[in-house]
Amino acid sequence: MGDFDWVRGFPLDFSGVDGSSKGAAPTVRRLSQMRGMYADADAEARAVADGGDPVVYEFYELGAPELPGDLAFGTSITYPGKVGSEYYMTKGHFHTILDTAEVYYTLSGEGCMLTESPEGDVVLHTLAPGKALYVPKRYAHRSVNTGGAPLVTFFVFRADAGHDYGTIETKGFRKLVLEGPDGRPRLADNPKWGGA
Amino acid sequence: MGDFDWVRGFPLDFSGVDGSSKGAAPTVRRLSQMRGMYADADAEARAVADGGDPVVYEFYELGAPELPGDLAFGTSITYPGKVGSEYYMTKGHFHTILDTAEVYYTLSGEGCMLTESPEGDVVLHTLAPGKALYVPKRYAHRSVNTGGAPLVTFFVFRADAGHDYGTIETKGFRKLVLEGPDGRPRLADNPKWGGA
Repeated sequence: MGDFDWVRGFPLDFSGVDGSSKGAAPTVRRLSQMRGMYADADAEARAVADGGDPVVYEFYELGAPELPGDLAFGTSITYPGKVGSEYYMTKGHFHTILDTAEVYYTLSGEGCMLTESPEGDVVLHTLAPGKALYVPKRYAHRSVNTGGAPLVTFFVFRADAGHDYGTIETKGFRKLVLEGPDGRPRLADNPKWGGA
Repeated sequence: MGDFDWVRGFPLDFSGVDGSSKGAAPTVRRLSQMRGMYADADAEARAVADGGDPVVYEFYELGAPELPGDLAFGTSITYPGKVGSEYYMTKGHFHTILDTAEVYYTLSGEGCMLTESPEGDVVLHTLAPGKALYVPKRYAHRSVNTGGAPLVTFFVFRADAGHDYGTIETKGFRKLVLEGPDGRPRLADNPKWGGA
C-alpha cells in the first residue's frame, strides 16, 4: 500500500459509491483536529467530548512527486453531519503556489464547494454526482456536505501546488454554510473571520 | 456553450454513464480522420467507404487557458468496435511538454490504456469503472475499447501540456491491441511501426 509507480504509471481503485480505495490508506480528520473552525464553539466541544469526536472527513494522499509536471489525485469523503447548524466540511486551503487550479468530479452525495479569493470574492459552487467542478487559480476551497450521505469527490491538482492550511486556520473563510430554518443551505457571514 | 468562467470557476455536467455534457460540445473523430493508423488498411478503407465512416471516439476540449498553473479536463468516449481485429482506439499522443502527467478516472465501459515512452517502454494499463489511472510524464497514451459498450473516462492534465499527435501519426505505437483467437485482447508488434 502506498507504493506507487510514478515512473511507469499505475491504476488505483476508488469506489464511485463511497470513495474508498483498497490500494491506499486514507488520512482521517476528526472534529478535534479542526478545533476552532466551526462557528458554534459549544456545539463543537460537546461533539468532541460527548459525541465521540466524530470523523468529519477523509482523503487520500498518494505521495505524488512534488514537481510542476506531476499531478496529485485521489478522493475526498466528507461525512454528513452538522456542528450546531453548520454543515460538516473540510478544513479548506489555499494552494501554496496560489496560481494553480484544481479539478473535481463528484462521484456521490450532495454538497457544495465554498471558494474564496484573497481579495474576498466568495463563490459557492454546487457539487452533485455527474458534475465536474473547476476551482480556479487563487481560490481557497472547502468541501461542504449538505446532504444525508457521504459526499465523495475525485480530485486532481498539480503535485507541487502545496497546501496552505494556515491562512484558513488563522483567519477562516469569510462565509459559513449553515442549515437555514427551511432546512436548506444558506451562506452567512463568519463572525469569527479574522481578516483585515 | 463553451463560455466558461476560468477566473471564478464553474461546474460542468459529464454523464457518468455515457460521458456526454449538456454544457459543452464534443470533438468527434471519425475513422476517416485516422487514416493509416490501423494495421489492416483494407478493413479501414471498407469501413470508411461502405461502413458509413463510423465515429470512433469523441472528447471534450473546453479551452482552458494554456498556462502551467491551469488544468484541462473533460471526458473521452471511445466507442466499441474493431477495424479488422484491432479494437477501436483514440489517435493517442505525447504531451508537447513531455514532462507532464495525466490522470484518468474510468466512468463506464471497459478497455485499456496503451502507453509508450520515447525509449520504447510499453505498458498496457487496464481501464475499468471505479479505477483511476496515473499516466506518467513522458509516456504517449491511447485509449482502447476492448468491450461492448462505450468506454468513458474523465481526464485531467496540465493545461499547457499540449498534444503532440504528429509523432504517433508518423511512427505509430510500437504495439497494437488486437482481439485474439480466444476473443480476448492481446498485444502484438506493430508491423507499420516507423521508429528508428
